[in-house]
Amino acid sequence: MTSLQTRGKLYLVPNTLDFAVSADAAHADLQTVLPLQVIQIAARLTQWVAENAKTTRAFLKRVDSVVPLSQALQSLNIVELPRPQKGAKVAVRAPLDGLLAPALQGLNIGLISEAGLPAVADPGAALVEAAHRLGVLVMPLSGPSSLLMALSASGLNGQSFAFVGYLPVDAAQRTIKLRELEAMSRRHQQTQLMIETPYRNQALMAAMLSSLGANCQLSVSCGLTLQGGWTRTDSVALWKQRPTHLPNDIPAVFALLSV
Amino acid sequence: MTSLQTRGKLYLVPNTLDFAVSADAAHADLQTVLPLQVIQIAARLTQWVAENAKTTRAFLKRVDSVVPLSQALQSLNIVELPRPQKGAKVAVRAPLDGLLAPALQGLNIGLISEAGLPAVADPGAALVEAAHRLGVLVMPLSGPSSLLMALSASGLNGQSFAFVGYLPVDAAQRTIKLRELEAMSRRHQQTQLMIETPYRNQALMAAMLSSLGANCQLSVSCGLTLQGGWTRTDSVALWKQRPTHLPNDIPAVFALLSV
Repeated sequence: MTSLQTRGKLYLVPNTLDFAVSADAAHADLQTVLPLQVIQIAARLTQWVAENAKTTRAFLKRVDSVVPLSQALQSLNIVELPRPQKGAKVAVRAPLDGLLAPALQGLNIGLISEAGLPAVADPGAALVEAAHRLGVLVMPLSGPSSLLMALSASGLNGQSFAFVGYLPVDAAQRTIKLRELEAMSRRHQQTQLMIETPYRNQALMAAMLSSLGANCQLSVSCGLTLQGGWTRTDSVALWKQRPTHLPNDIPAVFALLSV
Repeated sequence: MTSLQTRGKLYLVPNTLDFAVSADAAHADLQTVLPLQVIQIAARLTQWVAENAKTTRAFLKRVDSVVPLSQALQSLNIVELPRPQKGAKVAVRAPLDGLLAPALQGLNIGLISEAGLPAVADPGAALVEAAHRLGVLVMPLSGPSSLLMALSASGLNGQSFAFVGYLPVDAAQRTIKLRELEAMSRRHQQTQLMIETPYRNQALMAAMLSSLGANCQLSVSCGLTLQGGWTRTDSVALWKQRPTHLPNDIPAVFALLSV
């Protein structure tokens, strides 16, 4: 155990938004979405805690093509986070302290998700909580967040907004939740953001068009930062008049504001 | 008026997080927080709508030092957004359409805030809404968001969170609002994020420590992406035992989660 001064830090390393969707991800340019300094920090880290080790290795190959890794990829220590159910509220705490052992020995650690910022709409928060508890400094880095890019592109209220994660899969429960969100949005003039597993994009869209009021503003962002990514914001009435079919293999962010 | 195909786009250009706080901002490295591609896009834009023209010119000088501007800074068209009160819910719509005239003539426009992502916790959403209405494509770009960096660094729940902007200045109203947020956080297990004008950082902190329950988790991020930036997460009880004095000239993000 080292003193606070010589402990390693926990870097929160943002990932691109394209791994889940593109077979050509390895050819995409990392500098579209990541600052050079973030790539430089990633190139130096030898200890990783990852949502997914395989996509982390692919990420590090892309890093290496911009800034050579300080050590061979094969020699890096990449450990996977215990994976909670997406949307689960509480992660297991017990085994996480061990993942921070390298920091207690003086080595910096990188935490990385499959896409976007770690610990936002993704596992990882419990590891960050453990870092605070153990006195390991937490260093967030700048990178793409599909949620906030979708919010800024929506034109809906960015002064007050909430992200509620995934809606219930059960149709009746989903309708109840959508009406709750619409009421909350109206009461607080708060934009409500949510995501869905891509193959259920179209089902969520259909549920929104049948559950929400005609004047409710609905924004959908699909494939942001990818070739052909788009954002459409319209009233529910206009979405019904001119529907847009959503792809079943590209992540989308949904936002509603009841005005 | 051009056809949809030949219209210009509205790029949402992220800014650094340091203008409001650093006299040496011009010397800071843009590539700490911005992807090279974003800098390249900014270097080519000749039409700007800005929260603040002066800081936009300073930003563009920094862009120029990485990627030469396509036109002399003096020849760029930089128009300021009409400035709503911070936290105001409704912006004036009438004059905004005119700001998009260059796009209707085929020129790309950049929208930029004084810090972070445009239209998030900042004016600009009304311009984005006008773009959607006029058929101008909206292109959000990857960059730093102090809100989401603070959330990821907090270790609090990132699967459900809300940003509520500024709290009331009046002490009694602020206490009521803080208790409402704590109750909301407990009910939905939702992290509640807020910001304050830096000179009131310490007043908000004092109000939190006196209004919130001892077990409420409180996270403060101060000066993220700046030299010496930090995040501390502890229970209200521990913050009271070991207070941290907050600077009155550096923006902070406050987050609470009632567990």
